[in-house]
Amino acid sequence: MWEEHQNTVQVRRRELVGEERSMSCGVRAQVVPSVNNITEFIPGSGGNGGLAHSASTPSFHSFSGLGSPSLTTPSSLGFTSMTRSSPAASVASPQRPISPQDSPSRGRCTSPNAGGQEDNGSASNLPTYQENVGGTTYFFTAQDQPPFANTGATASPSPFTAAPQPTLVFPPYHVLPPTPAHVHHLRAPANAPHFFMGDELRQHLLEKHALTLAHVDHEQFPDLPQEVDMYHELVPLEPQHNVNKSSIFGYATSVYKATNIKTGLRYCLYRIHGYRLNNVKVTQLVDMWKKLQHSSVTQLREVFTTKAFGDNSIVFVYDYHAGAETLAARHFSSSSMLGSNGWEALATPLPGNGATESSARGIHKSHRHNSGNGLLPESTLWNYIIQLTGALRAIHTQGLACRTLDPTKILLTDNKSRIRINCCGIHDVLNFDPNAANPLANMPQYQQDDLVSLGNLMVALACNSYMALQRDSIQTAIELINRSYSRDLSMLVVCLLTSQRIKSINDVMPMIGARFYTALETATQRADVYESEIAKEVHNSRLFRLLTKLNTIVDRHQLHMDTSWSETGDRYMLKLFRDYVFHQTTEDGRPWLDLAHVVMVLNKLDAGSPDKICLMSHDEQNILVTSYSELKRCFERSFTELLQAASSHKTSLS
Amino acid sequence: MWEEHQNTVQVRRRELVGEERSMSCGVRAQVVPSVNNITEFIPGSGGNGGLAHSASTPSFHSFSGLGSPSLTTPSSLGFTSMTRSSPAASVASPQRPISPQDSPSRGRCTSPNAGGQEDNGSASNLPTYQENVGGTTYFFTAQDQPPFANTGATASPSPFTAAPQPTLVFPPYHVLPPTPAHVHHLRAPANAPHFFMGDELRQHLLEKHALTLAHVDHEQFPDLPQEVDMYHELVPLEPQHNVNKSSIFGYATSVYKATNIKTGLRYCLYRIHGYRLNNVKVTQLVDMWKKLQHSSVTQLREVFTTKAFGDNSIVFVYDYHAGAETLAARHFSSSSMLGSNGWEALATPLPGNGATESSARGIHKSHRHNSGNGLLPESTLWNYIIQLTGALRAIHTQGLACRTLDPTKILLTDNKSRIRINCCGIHDVLNFDPNAANPLANMPQYQQDDLVSLGNLMVALACNSYMALQRDSIQTAIELINRSYSRDLSMLVVCLLTSQRIKSINDVMPMIGARFYTALETATQRADVYESEIAKEVHNSRLFRLLTKLNTIVDRHQLHMDTSWSETGDRYMLKLFRDYVFHQTTEDGRPWLDLAHVVMVLNKLDAGSPDKICLMSHDEQNILVTSYSELKRCFERSFTELLQAASSHKTSLS
Repeated sequence: MWEEHQNTVQVRRRELVGEERSMSCGVRAQVVPSVNNITEFIPGSGGNGGLAHSASTPSFHSFSGLGSPSLTTPSSLGFTSMTRSSPAASVASPQRPISPQDSPSRGRCTSPNAGGQEDNGSASNLPTYQENVGGTTYFFTAQDQPPFANTGATASPSPFTAAPQPTLVFPPYHVLPPTPAHVHHLRAPANAPHFFMGDELRQHLLEKHALTLAHVDHEQFPDLPQEVDMYHELVPLEPQHNVNKSSIFGYATSVYKATNIKTGLRYCLYRIHGYRLNNVKVTQLVDMWKKLQHSSVTQLREVFTTKAFGDNSIVFVYDYHAGAETLAARHFSSSSMLGSNGWEALATPLPGNGATESSARGIHKSHRHNSGNGLLPESTLWNYIIQLTGALRAIHTQGLACRTLDPTKILLTDNKSRIRINCCGIHDVLNFDPNAANPLANMPQYQQDDLVSLGNLMVALACNSYMALQRDSIQTAIELINRSYSRDLSMLVVCLLTSQRIKSINDVMPMIGARFYTALETATQRADVYESEIAKEVHNSRLFRLLTKLNTIVDRHQLHMDTSWSETGDRYMLKLFRDYVFHQTTEDGRPWLDLAHVVMVLNKLDAGSPDKICLMSHDEQNILVTSYSELKRCFERSFTELLQAASSHKTSLS
Repeated sequence: MWEEHQNTVQVRRRELVGEERSMSCGVRAQVVPSVNNITEFIPGSGGNGGLAHSASTPSFHSFSGLGSPSLTTPSSLGFTSMTRSSPAASVASPQRPISPQDSPSRGRCTSPNAGGQEDNGSASNLPTYQENVGGTTYFFTAQDQPPFANTGATASPSPFTAAPQPTLVFPPYHVLPPTPAHVHHLRAPANAPHFFMGDELRQHLLEKHALTLAHVDHEQFPDLPQEVDMYHELVPLEPQHNVNKSSIFGYATSVYKATNIKTGLRYCLYRIHGYRLNNVKVTQLVDMWKKLQHSSVTQLREVFTTKAFGDNSIVFVYDYHAGAETLAARHFSSSSMLGSNGWEALATPLPGNGATESSARGIHKSHRHNSGNGLLPESTLWNYIIQLTGALRAIHTQGLACRTLDPTKILLTDNKSRIRINCCGIHDVLNFDPNAANPLANMPQYQQDDLVSLGNLMVALACNSYMALQRDSIQTAIELINRSYSRDLSMLVVCLLTSQRIKSINDVMPMIGARFYTALETATQRADVYESEIAKEVHNSRLFRLLTKLNTIVDRHQLHMDTSWSETGDRYMLKLFRDYVFHQTTEDGRPWLDLAHVVMVLNKLDAGSPDKICLMSHDEQNILVTSYSELKRCFERSFTELLQAASSHKTSLS
């Protein structure tokens, strides 16, 4: 059964004492020190009875595992995902980067405070050492102690040789630290579990995933082409009845989500209907746009013409941002414009009007927060301004101009806090003048227009209404902004609209001032929180893959028509290990369920730890003492065999 | 064996055809449509032979699973971690938030483009429908079609009812989208797998974890107290021989990492040796510092006096940042100061000196990048300036002053790009004047001093040497900065040092200018990358916990001394399911290893999908057709039983 494992100590149980569950008290000790020199017991069926190291059998010394060849999983077509993950599994194990030679002083240090070390300390003093494990008595000699004799937490080598303190003791395999204090105190203590990603973030990510992967029923969209240039899986992102001429571009437009055939990445296709490109000089401008990379601009990836839609269309390909919403839909949809808190009520301060009274009362103080009157908080407006000016600055610095600073062409993403200017470059292509000597000649004027557009946009946002931009109401709008927001904001808006004092986007910066620090602090904290969330998940994918591999091996019905495959050799060891991980019981026979135990033991397996482990056969007649490093070898051999079987048989048939 | 499962269709296999592995072709179809009205086959041993819905047996309709009571796992002490995780497991399943009522039109829609739907379409036309699954022929009638008759991808209900397109089809259970395009294009295409967190980030997180959890051998630190106030597990963070008087505070100091006994969070204890606090009025200042929260300041959490170290010490508790390094260690350690590229070579531009020649050559252009001459890149200096001024601004706004803007009291964290001012408040406490009427009276002067300190720090950093600050070399230093860096930077340094034009930290902002946008862009991109990394891991913790639970059930040796527990009833179903997930073979007998299959099937189980599933017994004599929702019930019942056994038995003994 386990004849192959000459270096695992196999002991036939002398007597079954009355308590049947004595296994559990043995396995709880978990660390069985230095069993490679058992003098009293010669296994009855162990093949070559001698357990001493020999050149032909792998010795314990070679089991330190850290310098051993890394897991070389043969790749197979059917198992691509898992094969790709296996290097990460070993790379990620905390013991990987170091060899024991880096910290030679650590191998033999003893630590009385680590669990289960007391016995061990005495073992190194006595010539022969006796221990009762699971009802079986073991005898050890202290001489010829292997370098990892002091197992347990203390002996796990330092993962980071560059650590400032050579005497640091690094953690065992199962533990994650709690959230860092600076992140923990950022948030109100929630009921969310500390051990895994927060539910809110998870929900947000799952929503994004679902939207990214969503497709449509093709019966409902018979006109939708299967393939457009290098893109397929088209999904209309706007209602179909909206195919009237876009007021901004002067053409009918459609927007689709699509998947690149080669890369599988999702993009957004912005299609201009019935447009025939007749000048290739425009590629100069397109290339400039493609190079513009800014976190507040949806990047243009390519432009192509196509007849796939049954007409002459030109398609602009942008990054796809799942769950994005336009500024227009967010702030100027019919539901938010109407109602008693709308623009009309705010703009006409008649006495007797309830809404106006409340706004008149808190003119200078409470209105700065604009909580109850339907206006946006000032901080939101500044957040938009900082991002929009950042984007405009990046665009203008490249010698380009946005020209489409319209609420319908600005996207809100990530909980509506991130802004991205959309549809850049479309105007430049559609209105390209092939006869102009220099296509960039008009850019300075367009850039000035951008600043006025920004001012208009801010007025509309501040008044929460597009009607505020009509010629006869702009003065009322400015007054409303004066009343409701800080002097800084109204100054900025007036300056943008008159374009007297602001000649370029750089002149806006001083008016933002210290709010940059606020924006920076927000972005930094967001990254810190994400980092702490991702830190909680750092082991889980590796453990999941490990457990999947283990499950493909253990209890497999047959391999190569051999139904005893999973009951013999390496697989038998792994089956006993599976029982050790999941099916232990307490002394009184209850199931022992402890996730920390599962994680720790799996991590030790993955790391190939030299720690000892006691496995007991199902009939409780046999106890195997082996090490995690040996189990890891069993594991790798067995899985390699499976992979080879999965791929090689096909070859022999062909 | 499976008598309890009246609603699973059980069919005795009529004849074993020559191909033994016919199971696999059956299970590949995976979706068996509408099997609840099998007219031809009455299972031989199925108990009450009628398979029609009755009030007493759960009907297929109640299996839509979405409205079923959520997984109520009883909590148990030994299984805390896993119990806490189980709500997240169900919350996170993509189908959770919706009930089928929200999208009634979706239940019956047919989609020809979803896999395996062709047969199904014809099924709804024929009165009786025949299908061969795994060598067994099934007959269905089309009448009384259950609402989930059209299973497969199309029938999975929309996870998000607020989606703009009611016709969107949401993804099945196994798929993750690739990295979003805007993040994908940020980085050079790496060899890192797309499916899991990048190795670099993982390594960074694991390093932080190891350092956070590291402890020391107490034998080597016999003087270290076991407990100090509410903190234990002390780890010295600086070499012990450094206990001379700190040049900054005038006292001997020690720094320890420590764990809060109540919360388990790690903090940094900054101990001032031999200091006796004799005035409690100082708590006013301490409270002000405790309120100051900024991402570039290590936050002061509390201050206490203690005799635990054998003397009168005062301890300042700060957030612990794993892997932090001081600016002094980073830039002014002996190794970086010496060498041919040091301050001496740069400060004395003698002809004939090789280093100087190269610096003279590229005075205006290439030196801005300072790649080869040992000076810091200008962007690094601005990064420091932005963070330091942000921190100083937050401090000064609170009416406080830093007073310790020294390279040894500034920490670098997170790949050395984040700065945190350390040791805030210590000066205020140690030099507190109990006789002063207003302890804040001197703050304006201290704030001015902070600005000069900042100037000095920047000179030292720019010249890469502390010697540049000596009185007779400051002029040379300014010249070096003029030569090597932009005019903006040298202007800023001169203004800070002379404190003529800069009266407050706010006056620095205009000199930073557009570099704010750069810093903001960097922070935003960092958060975007983290979000995309965490999105890859969103399912893994849930799947790992699910697989762990499944493993604790399947093949368990005994429960309540019943060795057949895992072979009967619910557990038998789950065992067959385990084989279905992990042990399938191809038609020619090879193992079928496909991680996507594992993930999809486990996700369907977790979501309690109404999809059908074909399970085959080990002896290949029986085929069970059941649904994932029924399997989920089996799973929950079995695990609940285990949990109860783990806790209840103890109660009965006591």
